[in-house]
Amino acid sequence: MDFFQCISLKEAQRLIENELLNHKIEQEILALPASLGRIAACDIQSTVVLPSFSRSTVDGFAVRSSDTFAASETSPAMFTIVGEVCMGKSTALKLLPGEAVHIPTGGMLPQNADAVVMIEYTEQMDETMLMVLHAATPKENVVWRGEDVQAKQLLVEKGQQIASRHIGILAACGIGQVAVNKKLRVAVFSTGDELVDLGQKPEAGQLWDTNSYVLAAMLEEQGFCAVRMGIVEDTQTAFLAALQKGIEGFQAVLISGGSSVGVRDHTVNAVNALGKPGVLFHGLMIKPGKPMIFGSVNAVPIFGLPGHPVAACTVCKALVLPALARMSGENVSHEITIKAKLMRNIASSVSRDDFIQVKLVYQEGEYQAIPILGKSGLIRLLAEADGMIQIPAGKTGCSEGEIVEVFHIHQIKRV
Amino acid sequence: MDFFQCISLKEAQRLIENELLNHKIEQEILALPASLGRIAACDIQSTVVLPSFSRSTVDGFAVRSSDTFAASETSPAMFTIVGEVCMGKSTALKLLPGEAVHIPTGGMLPQNADAVVMIEYTEQMDETMLMVLHAATPKENVVWRGEDVQAKQLLVEKGQQIASRHIGILAACGIGQVAVNKKLRVAVFSTGDELVDLGQKPEAGQLWDTNSYVLAAMLEEQGFCAVRMGIVEDTQTAFLAALQKGIEGFQAVLISGGSSVGVRDHTVNAVNALGKPGVLFHGLMIKPGKPMIFGSVNAVPIFGLPGHPVAACTVCKALVLPALARMSGENVSHEITIKAKLMRNIASSVSRDDFIQVKLVYQEGEYQAIPILGKSGLIRLLAEADGMIQIPAGKTGCSEGEIVEVFHIHQIKRV
Repeated sequence: MDFFQCISLKEAQRLIENELLNHKIEQEILALPASLGRIAACDIQSTVVLPSFSRSTVDGFAVRSSDTFAASETSPAMFTIVGEVCMGKSTALKLLPGEAVHIPTGGMLPQNADAVVMIEYTEQMDETMLMVLHAATPKENVVWRGEDVQAKQLLVEKGQQIASRHIGILAACGIGQVAVNKKLRVAVFSTGDELVDLGQKPEAGQLWDTNSYVLAAMLEEQGFCAVRMGIVEDTQTAFLAALQKGIEGFQAVLISGGSSVGVRDHTVNAVNALGKPGVLFHGLMIKPGKPMIFGSVNAVPIFGLPGHPVAACTVCKALVLPALARMSGENVSHEITIKAKLMRNIASSVSRDDFIQVKLVYQEGEYQAIPILGKSGLIRLLAEADGMIQIPAGKTGCSEGEIVEVFHIHQIKRV
Repeated sequence: MDFFQCISLKEAQRLIENELLNHKIEQEILALPASLGRIAACDIQSTVVLPSFSRSTVDGFAVRSSDTFAASETSPAMFTIVGEVCMGKSTALKLLPGEAVHIPTGGMLPQNADAVVMIEYTEQMDETMLMVLHAATPKENVVWRGEDVQAKQLLVEKGQQIASRHIGILAACGIGQVAVNKKLRVAVFSTGDELVDLGQKPEAGQLWDTNSYVLAAMLEEQGFCAVRMGIVEDTQTAFLAALQKGIEGFQAVLISGGSSVGVRDHTVNAVNALGKPGVLFHGLMIKPGKPMIFGSVNAVPIFGLPGHPVAACTVCKALVLPALARMSGENVSHEITIKAKLMRNIASSVSRDDFIQVKLVYQEGEYQAIPILGKSGLIRLLAEADGMIQIPAGKTGCSEGEIVEVFHIHQIKRV
């Protein structure tokens, strides 16, 4: 196989998606706090009504709003205080006309009451006599039973990533355990006889392994469980053994470097030797990232990424992460993108999709996207990038001043 | 103390910042992969030069570019192959005029070579005879020693959050251990006699505790270590004991609910009783979130948040998270914000900062911000929000169609 069979990005996405269609997603039950950031395994509906009782949103007096009709500071309405609602306690009180009940924020509304007058708009004359200086409208300062959440209301959709805001509504509805999809376990291999691992001292002509670290970190940032599997020796036997280990113990395999001439054949041969369907494509009409290999063995996808870190990371962002998100059962709606003004011309070829790393600068209320250009072997290009832009096939480039959409923006906090 | 002493958001930020100025940040040393998402404790400079040797970015032949002058398919330049560079090995080869050396991608350039001709542009006649069909320019297909990273080059700045892209350049420079700031440990209390914890069944008039779950999740999303400390009973003794525990075992304390009339005095009294300087402000000119309390005891900040979940979360986003980020030594540069078209009028008061939760919809290449309005007691408002907008004091509102800046956008992956 050679680059003569290069396929388009769209076709590659279709092939990958097709291959992953039947991936089975395992589930697990977690305590609510542990579900943060995980993917909901099914729709979560409320089993309760919220609030379960009509309650006051202020400190004051529960009244029948009709009894306050036309009340004002100059012409107060008179009430008899017939009791008090205690926080966290049920109340059996039932208002008759002209009666009021003292109620704290969050307190349960007595029967027949339909509004709460804030304490600021009342004047208590003695133990039982109350002046109300304000005409309350029905439901004023009250959250009605069921006003917040209805029974069977959808709280979290299947495939949604559970964020803090969901934790809030789930807790409010008393849901203490959540079914989530298991984290995808991904094996990450580096290849290349010139590589040594961190902690070792490289001899002349050798480099520290970079790709397995940066790729594993990219996967972890996206919520996958990445396991670095070390550097594979540049022999067919070693590739076979490594990939065998990968497909047996993991749900997906990344192997970088093995797609350059010389070693790329090892990846292709090993993937084809290990099982069906084997290699599905080799060579991609994108830049950087052309030498990409994709295959699958026993429903475990194997992504053969370029050796250059920027190319490896570009392919990872453009193809691998979306594929893994789909495998995780994530219902990817819309990735947040940012519009930015491109700060210089970029030429591109109509025959391929180009991905350009950009630095974002916020100035005078707008974002500027500064392309980071250089040889694809430079790791620095990646370190400086805040996101990337895509110039799709069919377009000859982007002009300085053009508004571009920046995606895969680095702004990840949770650890 | 009462709301008569309400202060502005700006003044509150100034007071909080001032109080946290002298917070000491503890550090720890982590293995590179574990440093992902953490805050760099100091500037990290490279101790090496990258690449440490000039190397080829393609498979081909290393040559002296001047020897290929005017070479083309019709008029090739002739070379003698004098050897081969092996991956990961040093080479002692030194090119004389007209000599070429076979070199793989990543291979070390022999002495005197200054370019590599891709194998596609060569034709090998026999073991030693090579035709070059292309004029190479100096440095073509070569990454020069030091071209990527210089010695002492700043790789990660003190206070920067370490992302995957930094992991890449740190690995490339052989940095296997990183000094990071310790995660801030934050105690999160709920208060209110009407609350029961998840797993318990609420009686009539009771609610499940929501705030400690949602606040802890918000802190975790931002990379802090949040510990839920349960529901504090509504007595002065219980508040004193709880806050005492908080300031002794944690770097910051959040307590919600205790700032409503009735229980708010317990927080104020306890904070003042526990030590200096005690309560620094009580009451904030923002909506929602007015009853906020801020104090400090023995340099541990105590944030008293409103009881309503939306108000508590708004104050947390607007004031608490930025304060904790500062305490963590995070060099917060610019939070990513998104410009969106406001989809309805919103009235605001000139005397305060208003925060509105919005839902983001992406349509025809632009974002729409749909305000989520409703009583502040509704948890649903929070669950539906993708971000929030701020209408600063001095402004009377925002109009439908206005372009607003949405911040604190929910798009957090790492777990």
